[in-house]
Amino acid sequence: MSDQKKSVYKPKSISGFPEWLPEFRAVEQQWLDHLRRAFESYGYCSIETPAVEELNVLGAKGEVDKEIYVLERLHKDENEKSSEARLALHFDQTVPLARYVAQHFSELTFPFKRYQMQKVWRGERPQLGRMREFYQCDIDVIHVDNLPIAFDAEMPAVIYEALTALDIGRIQIRISNRKILLGLLEALHVTDPVAVTRAVDKLEKIGEASVRELLSTEAGLNDAAMDAVLQLAGTKGDAQALRGITSQNETMQEGLAELTFVMNALKHLPAGAAIADLSIVRGLDYYTGTVYETALLDVPEFQGSVCSGGRYDDLAGNYISKHLPGVGISIGFSRLFDILKAKGHIKPGRKCPTDVLVILPSEDLRPMAAQTASALRKRGLNVELYHAPQKVGKQIEYADKKGISYVWFPPFEDGKTHEVKNITTGTQESADPQSWLPAT
Amino acid sequence: MSDQKKSVYKPKSISGFPEWLPEFRAVEQQWLDHLRRAFESYGYCSIETPAVEELNVLGAKGEVDKEIYVLERLHKDENEKSSEARLALHFDQTVPLARYVAQHFSELTFPFKRYQMQKVWRGERPQLGRMREFYQCDIDVIHVDNLPIAFDAEMPAVIYEALTALDIGRIQIRISNRKILLGLLEALHVTDPVAVTRAVDKLEKIGEASVRELLSTEAGLNDAAMDAVLQLAGTKGDAQALRGITSQNETMQEGLAELTFVMNALKHLPAGAAIADLSIVRGLDYYTGTVYETALLDVPEFQGSVCSGGRYDDLAGNYISKHLPGVGISIGFSRLFDILKAKGHIKPGRKCPTDVLVILPSEDLRPMAAQTASALRKRGLNVELYHAPQKVGKQIEYADKKGISYVWFPPFEDGKTHEVKNITTGTQESADPQSWLPAT
Repeated sequence: MSDQKKSVYKPKSISGFPEWLPEFRAVEQQWLDHLRRAFESYGYCSIETPAVEELNVLGAKGEVDKEIYVLERLHKDENEKSSEARLALHFDQTVPLARYVAQHFSELTFPFKRYQMQKVWRGERPQLGRMREFYQCDIDVIHVDNLPIAFDAEMPAVIYEALTALDIGRIQIRISNRKILLGLLEALHVTDPVAVTRAVDKLEKIGEASVRELLSTEAGLNDAAMDAVLQLAGTKGDAQALRGITSQNETMQEGLAELTFVMNALKHLPAGAAIADLSIVRGLDYYTGTVYETALLDVPEFQGSVCSGGRYDDLAGNYISKHLPGVGISIGFSRLFDILKAKGHIKPGRKCPTDVLVILPSEDLRPMAAQTASALRKRGLNVELYHAPQKVGKQIEYADKKGISYVWFPPFEDGKTHEVKNITTGTQESADPQSWLPAT
Repeated sequence: MSDQKKSVYKPKSISGFPEWLPEFRAVEQQWLDHLRRAFESYGYCSIETPAVEELNVLGAKGEVDKEIYVLERLHKDENEKSSEARLALHFDQTVPLARYVAQHFSELTFPFKRYQMQKVWRGERPQLGRMREFYQCDIDVIHVDNLPIAFDAEMPAVIYEALTALDIGRIQIRISNRKILLGLLEALHVTDPVAVTRAVDKLEKIGEASVRELLSTEAGLNDAAMDAVLQLAGTKGDAQALRGITSQNETMQEGLAELTFVMNALKHLPAGAAIADLSIVRGLDYYTGTVYETALLDVPEFQGSVCSGGRYDDLAGNYISKHLPGVGISIGFSRLFDILKAKGHIKPGRKCPTDVLVILPSEDLRPMAAQTASALRKRGLNVELYHAPQKVGKQIEYADKKGISYVWFPPFEDGKTHEVKNITTGTQESADPQSWLPAT
């Protein structure tokens, strides 16, 4: 290698840490804007927590240890305090929310309705739709002591608004209440309800025959109990469908009443957008009542739930001696975006936000051209002034390459008018920078 | 401790990792929106890079090693590949930009104008305005081989729009061109120009007498050379002020011509918003021409530059065998926000984005009240429906506590009309959910 030529370190993508070209980042940003709009339209406030938490705080959950990324300084100062707490990147937004609410408890107003759209990190083995760095978009409502059931009904309403603002076809939010199945298991004197919910959770994935197998071998259910469980899990429909279920005890009755309330409150949604589906149980023991999953009906390549959550009894018991029940739902944003992009369901957006490129006729005319650009900008348009007085053809070529729809010609000579050309249609006409607007 | 009482881990703030209450997060978000709006109005596209880079990529710069946070998995799989590259959190957005442009070179359109508003991490000792996690808001333009000087003039124009959209008083962008001073040092046969720029960079901080001391002891300048350097560094004003400088060689001449171009292109800004100031040299050797710093004129507590940058000859030489000159500027967003907040210059915003709270008269009337909320939402308003049929006084109290300006009374009985109350003024009047708008 000659002296002339520097050695270069050719960078490559880091597996599991996606980044997009500007034309896809534009879509991602638009999607995030739509979600934010929907969340705020229901009064949810934004919070943002640091990327890190103390390992002690994350450790309180104790499950996902293996996936946690810990931070280490590359070189520590010799005299640095070793007493500093170890820090780790957060792996979800629920633990940070719990910590935030506990820490700022006296300064928050309850019921506390917040949304949070941040990246989270998990050291999992990357594959399509499973990343090491990804966006989650969460809403939760937290209250003190008692949280009204109305919020359980609000979650699907917000999510319906949020997800239908994205161009991803029909969605179906599937709703259940864990108290119904748990009440039945109580009535059946089932000794290992967790094994049952774990098996039922697999219904869609492995089918009824395999679930029966699990219910028998893992949970020790007899045929009658199995029939009862599977009949219950087979219940799907609106509030009406729930009437066929006979409540065996108070727990079941409570669950049925809550789910009926939620379904009735969602009647305004289009048919099929939100259904009661008692096969939904969610894996986590964490949930104590309402649970949600969401399917994309028009994207067969997208398996599983795009948006899940539920009601939990006690959010922050590890960090504060207050009883703080909550209900929340989380959109697996990057997973959705990644899969839909890979399967060709996302059309690239604009390479730049520019609406109009103002042509620079000559260096002499720069002040006038700059003034034109500035006048258009003041009226809310995104405008670039071409950077050098090159041939007009070359300037138009730049607009074309960047996907800029309009090219603006300020007067090249005294007495001439401004003209604007629509690159897509080819039409060109006189226009006034003080009043012109692009066709929408 | 009794069995009843769980032990709690009382969480506290992590030094250097700020987070805000909702009312300040609302202001932060609004500020970020304003900056984005200004960047896009000039045609800059958004990109977002992962929080991490390979340590090899960051290492290419070799300066800030001590501040770098490296990622380690808490528990590694036994059979995990040890060949995976070590990852570290990025400490700025320039290295990631260089890597991004090199990696996606063939898919980008040049000149490439991008903005980037992300958090970056540095393991520094925290103090007011110096954090371990903070937002930077950057714009840069990168071109192949030659980057027109017009972009050097665009940076201050964009930054003026961006920063004046925030409520922080008058700003002053101070602009120089390193070629002028370096040309003079060439003419003076100064052997250690870096020592000179390092000394001149301290003018505002330590004063002329101390700088003279440094120029003599550290850079070995004689009195005549010192006078020449300090006279040059004392030049401040508009393009006119530059005419007093006698160019000694081609380098100086180039620098003067470039700076004159930039200042002339900024004539449309209010007097004093952008000035030529030859005492600005920037510490980094990295910059090769235009350099910027920005002062807040109305906030004496804010020391130093809120927004700095300049022209660099070769962005991505470490990663690609292309000559990619660029010019960029970076707003130290969190530093600005942190200091202004601490000094009481930022008024808290709204605790929630809700414009209107719809009163829930009774459980029976929930569907009607929900419909009212929905009608208002469809018209672009942010609306909460109160969650339970409590006393009206209690519902109004909630609106008051959350800073919601309007309370909406749907008809409590058949035949009555809707009414809306402005909590601030106390006025209450009939209103139609299909047409009512809040006073602005």
